[in-house]
Amino acid sequence: MTAPLGTVGTTVTGGVATARGFRASGISAGIKANKNPDLALIVSDTPATAVAVFTINKAQAAPVLVSKEHLAKSGGVVRAIVVNSGCANACTGESGMAAAREMAWETAKLVGCAPEQVLVASTGVIGVGLPMDKIKNGLPPAFAALSSDHGPQAARAIMTTDPFPKEACATVNIGGKTVTIGGMAKGSGMIEPMMATMLGFVTTDAKVAQPLLHRALVEVVNDTFNAITVDGECSTNDTVMLLANGQSGATVTDAEYAEFVRGLRAVCLELALGIVRGGEGATKLVTVTVSGAASSADARKAAKAIANSPLVKTAIHGGDPNWGRLIAVAGRAGVAFELERAKVTIGSIVLFDNGRPYDERAPQAAEYLKGTDLSVGVDLGAGSVSSTVWTCDLTAEYVKINADYRT
Amino acid sequence: MTAPLGTVGTTVTGGVATARGFRASGISAGIKANKNPDLALIVSDTPATAVAVFTINKAQAAPVLVSKEHLAKSGGVVRAIVVNSGCANACTGESGMAAAREMAWETAKLVGCAPEQVLVASTGVIGVGLPMDKIKNGLPPAFAALSSDHGPQAARAIMTTDPFPKEACATVNIGGKTVTIGGMAKGSGMIEPMMATMLGFVTTDAKVAQPLLHRALVEVVNDTFNAITVDGECSTNDTVMLLANGQSGATVTDAEYAEFVRGLRAVCLELALGIVRGGEGATKLVTVTVSGAASSADARKAAKAIANSPLVKTAIHGGDPNWGRLIAVAGRAGVAFELERAKVTIGSIVLFDNGRPYDERAPQAAEYLKGTDLSVGVDLGAGSVSSTVWTCDLTAEYVKINADYRT
Repeated sequence: MTAPLGTVGTTVTGGVATARGFRASGISAGIKANKNPDLALIVSDTPATAVAVFTINKAQAAPVLVSKEHLAKSGGVVRAIVVNSGCANACTGESGMAAAREMAWETAKLVGCAPEQVLVASTGVIGVGLPMDKIKNGLPPAFAALSSDHGPQAARAIMTTDPFPKEACATVNIGGKTVTIGGMAKGSGMIEPMMATMLGFVTTDAKVAQPLLHRALVEVVNDTFNAITVDGECSTNDTVMLLANGQSGATVTDAEYAEFVRGLRAVCLELALGIVRGGEGATKLVTVTVSGAASSADARKAAKAIANSPLVKTAIHGGDPNWGRLIAVAGRAGVAFELERAKVTIGSIVLFDNGRPYDERAPQAAEYLKGTDLSVGVDLGAGSVSSTVWTCDLTAEYVKINADYRT
Repeated sequence: MTAPLGTVGTTVTGGVATARGFRASGISAGIKANKNPDLALIVSDTPATAVAVFTINKAQAAPVLVSKEHLAKSGGVVRAIVVNSGCANACTGESGMAAAREMAWETAKLVGCAPEQVLVASTGVIGVGLPMDKIKNGLPPAFAALSSDHGPQAARAIMTTDPFPKEACATVNIGGKTVTIGGMAKGSGMIEPMMATMLGFVTTDAKVAQPLLHRALVEVVNDTFNAITVDGECSTNDTVMLLANGQSGATVTDAEYAEFVRGLRAVCLELALGIVRGGEGATKLVTVTVSGAASSADARKAAKAIANSPLVKTAIHGGDPNWGRLIAVAGRAGVAFELERAKVTIGSIVLFDNGRPYDERAPQAAEYLKGTDLSVGVDLGAGSVSSTVWTCDLTAEYVKINADYRT
């Protein structure tokens, strides 16, 4: 899954509870009507340095606001994260804020820490209040189930319409010591522009000062979680959290930063690509690379426009090497674009170059598009900057899932 | 169909050949494999003042470039418009430009005018050359078929995936004389941001000086053709043309401008709503009104974001009164937005107001959503400016049409 990047950390089997000193659990608290797991805990045995990035949606859900508050109050030193699926606790006003605080408070009592040392996340339907009785009843068994082996259970408990759980883990060598970085994530609609009901939780046993840890998370999220899109939507609840508890005995400073980021990137990219693969109704993972842009902003903007275009996504779904749609989207993306110097590739097949189509290669491209792991490229002919984003195809199943979500 | 606007001209039955001194035709020239009509002519018996607005896509098709050239060379006085469907003549380089010029030239020979007095439009697959032999063979029978009764044939010949032809006509009283304004249009995917493989042709027998005619077209297109969206796409070929030949004997000056615009708006709105109703796979017409915006740019931006949101469009398709998705899209639209003062209405039912959901009204809203002519409203709580756009639902049929378009 990490193939698209040239340099990745050594990925190993594992998840959010693999790094030393972390335990996790996932249980069914009855929030979801179908009794699937819906409550997850992540606990660090010792206080961990915490950083997070949140949705830029102006309608921020209560758990987002409360987690921001707790990060500030705790000075970024936390012990636990509590997550529920089945209810987003968004657009729920003051009672929603109280519920998110109570969820943290109840968790803190079990862990034995201050409430602000607990971060909170929720995902599910918007505008419905959290069933606090179910969460309160669910927390003790979730706490009892905590184990370094229960990362997979936690990964299942944060799913909504995700077809499969997403876990990833990597190890890097920091000053002769092995540092583990592991995580879990959930999608699977509303993915984009800056993460969307996308939750990601990553833990590491490295010791990293908060400013450096924050820098690493922002840098990596930009090229991974923020470089994916399923439907161009951005939710009220998007969150990526990263905890570092130092239990490996290795400390990351400026000298070890690049190596640490390499491992963090490997984990986040694998999780992010997992979200795209598991996008609602998705049958194909598509790597969209825009090159020849006048600026990096242009490159990203054009790549996102292509990755979100319903016409491009349906053509890929249908296995149609319709390079004309790629050109048309690049042309309307609001970026510098020179048709006479533009180029379109599907896989490694050039279908349009220097103002000339090569339709005789269409059958070869159609054959390529039968695969499930695809790449398309557009050179804007306007400069030398590139950007890569990942998306999936648009299918009738996406429509079905989202037309019937609440009914 | 014109219900959404309070003031419209008197709409009557008719189309692009109803105004005095205009004739039209539509025939099959064999460009489409299925032998459906694919070549349309519109001819004014006398020289007509012409104005047009074109796609803002940077990959402009040859007919767009040639029509711009002809408008400039002819000083905006034209005799005919020739249109083909089945091939967009876009991304076809120099040979495409030559083909578009030849199409105008062959038409000019039949009409007996200068080549620059003929405007050209094409719609269909991108990147395929025009079959000039078929067009050349088709033009004489198309010319022979010209009639003031053949607007409907012309409207059929410009269709691609449109499920039905779009025609509209209105009359207005200008200085005691009846002026007729009639037109035709085609969709039906790639509709937006600034018109998209959307072609519109409007004729009138009023006499209007070119600058005033241009002002009228730009003003009306902004609230009609540019206020609709099917899938957020903008094509290489979008064009709206307006011809005024003065055969009614009525002259429109500043004094009669408002009345003329009233009629022009009625025609363009009916055509634009027809495009949305006939959007690929569409089953519902949705009027999206954003109010409480800090600026008109914000209002339009938020309305377009909602109208293009796959999550909103699928929820409406499924009859799900999911106001949370409307709030989430408003929150990520990049406009001023105050959750605590925001309001969501579906039909006339308030589902969210002042930070509080009214989910007890959801069944009533679900009942309302069973209709096919729907309205949704979001008040951003950030000002007092409004904007209305029109869209359709997103269906599995849209995916099917666009996955299979060329295959």
